[in-house]
Amino acid sequence: MSKLLAVGTVAFDAIETPFGKTDKILGGSGTFVGLAAAQFGVQTGVVSVVGGDFPQAYLDMMNQRGINTEGVEIVEDGKTFFWSGKYHNDMNSRDTLVTELNVLADFTPIVPASFKDSAIVMLGNLHPLTQNSVLDQLNEKPKLVILDTMNFWMDAALEDLHSVLKRVDVITINDEEARQLSGEYSLVNAANKIHKMGPKFVIIKKGEHGALLFNEGKMFFAPALPLAEVFDPTGAGDTFAGGFSGYLAKTEDISFENMKNAVIYGSNLASFCVEKFGTERMESLQTSEVQDRLKVFKELTQFEIKLA
Amino acid sequence: MSKLLAVGTVAFDAIETPFGKTDKILGGSGTFVGLAAAQFGVQTGVVSVVGGDFPQAYLDMMNQRGINTEGVEIVEDGKTFFWSGKYHNDMNSRDTLVTELNVLADFTPIVPASFKDSAIVMLGNLHPLTQNSVLDQLNEKPKLVILDTMNFWMDAALEDLHSVLKRVDVITINDEEARQLSGEYSLVNAANKIHKMGPKFVIIKKGEHGALLFNEGKMFFAPALPLAEVFDPTGAGDTFAGGFSGYLAKTEDISFENMKNAVIYGSNLASFCVEKFGTERMESLQTSEVQDRLKVFKELTQFEIKLA
Repeated sequence: MSKLLAVGTVAFDAIETPFGKTDKILGGSGTFVGLAAAQFGVQTGVVSVVGGDFPQAYLDMMNQRGINTEGVEIVEDGKTFFWSGKYHNDMNSRDTLVTELNVLADFTPIVPASFKDSAIVMLGNLHPLTQNSVLDQLNEKPKLVILDTMNFWMDAALEDLHSVLKRVDVITINDEEARQLSGEYSLVNAANKIHKMGPKFVIIKKGEHGALLFNEGKMFFAPALPLAEVFDPTGAGDTFAGGFSGYLAKTEDISFENMKNAVIYGSNLASFCVEKFGTERMESLQTSEVQDRLKVFKELTQFEIKLA
Repeated sequence: MSKLLAVGTVAFDAIETPFGKTDKILGGSGTFVGLAAAQFGVQTGVVSVVGGDFPQAYLDMMNQRGINTEGVEIVEDGKTFFWSGKYHNDMNSRDTLVTELNVLADFTPIVPASFKDSAIVMLGNLHPLTQNSVLDQLNEKPKLVILDTMNFWMDAALEDLHSVLKRVDVITINDEEARQLSGEYSLVNAANKIHKMGPKFVIIKKGEHGALLFNEGKMFFAPALPLAEVFDPTGAGDTFAGGFSGYLAKTEDISFENMKNAVIYGSNLASFCVEKFGTERMESLQTSEVQDRLKVFKELTQFEIKLA
């Protein structure tokens, strides 16, 4: 089993969906990645920053699940990053109501000594310079570096993004962002262009339409599980990334064939995440439930053609 | 091997895409269904209508591929149904430029005696009363009735549509139409409601995002093959339906497990259809190419989880 280092936000979210609304609850990409990876019992170190207003109980909950929070800096006189959003009826689009960067505005990630030898590194969606500085702190080149980013950094820091991409093995990105980054409409062509920027593996997330994994001419597709009800999509993408990287840390096999399994596990865990508000479902999730749903994913995708 | 009866249009299309434009070329749902089913060497009878302007060479081409066109009525003093459309740059949306119903306006399908015992019936997207009248002409209840329809009939002839749906085993419909027909946003809930209208099997086509097969609580997903270039999407949905029904006619196995294979073959053939204008690619398609692409579909979807 490899160590997993996850850099991302640990934050407060306030969410409104057609099913209800929450006050400030636990959120953040680092949190969701950590909770997903915890399903595989891997040693995950989260690097992030919170304010003095962040409840110790949340950190305790993460620690109880084996998530190392040594790298979560607490700025006692600062406030925790806060995001608030409202989902539309189709759950595929949302309005951001509030974004308060707070302590995140001056975030300088510090990788704890005990995670400087991590084999798998998951760089959550942050400024590319911040992502780069994490890689600079490691003892040696990790076995696998996974990077998540978004259109905001393509607009605001494209050169820095290209710089960090050269050091990245896997990029996770949504379909519109893949098109923006590559200038190609076809996702096949987009992946080919992104390969040339650095990442040998390109994961294009299509939300309810699943995710595509590209590896220099090879392709794999993992559907999202069709659900009767999507309660709250917040954190689904980060849970996917956490499931993907956690599975690879657990199995220590970064072949394309094993990455297929990793994206299936990512989709599997994401399908639970959306069943309740925030981290609620991921906190209660049992291994047996994940294994049962794996059977559903197999039934959903596996076939045996009899006719030659 | 079972006989396949396919009712639909045999028509002229004029198509404009970002890659070029055509004059009037061969098109129509019956044509695409027949060409797809021909890949399996099944006896397919097409029931349709054309005008005196329809080239005999097109009928000859279909006959050479084993498609029986006895049921294609020729109205000598009439003109063939003509559709013209222009695809937008993303190839996912299009504008209809011309729709001339011509002989289709008074179409009364007549099932040839030699196909009144067809085991598999594919009712193409026509008025529900026309679809119903085809079923009335058969000697006995077919083994499997597949129906394609669209939002136009939900708006214009909903009661008639509900009437024919009671006699149908499989409905193929796109995602927006499934939502309209059921009043449910979630496709899982939509399929459940449509089951109650008659069809035990519901296929929801999502274009480039693949197709879902539902069977009373069971689900299967076939992705569309990600392509570097979609040249002309015209006929892809009908080719999917033709591949689906042709495979079932060939294998004579209408279990859910075998329908999984049928939707994979439907996706497989549809991925060829879009590579050239109109029927061009389907006319030149070789069995070996279909088998090679089946391997690509397996690589795209099949996985083997090692970790319990």
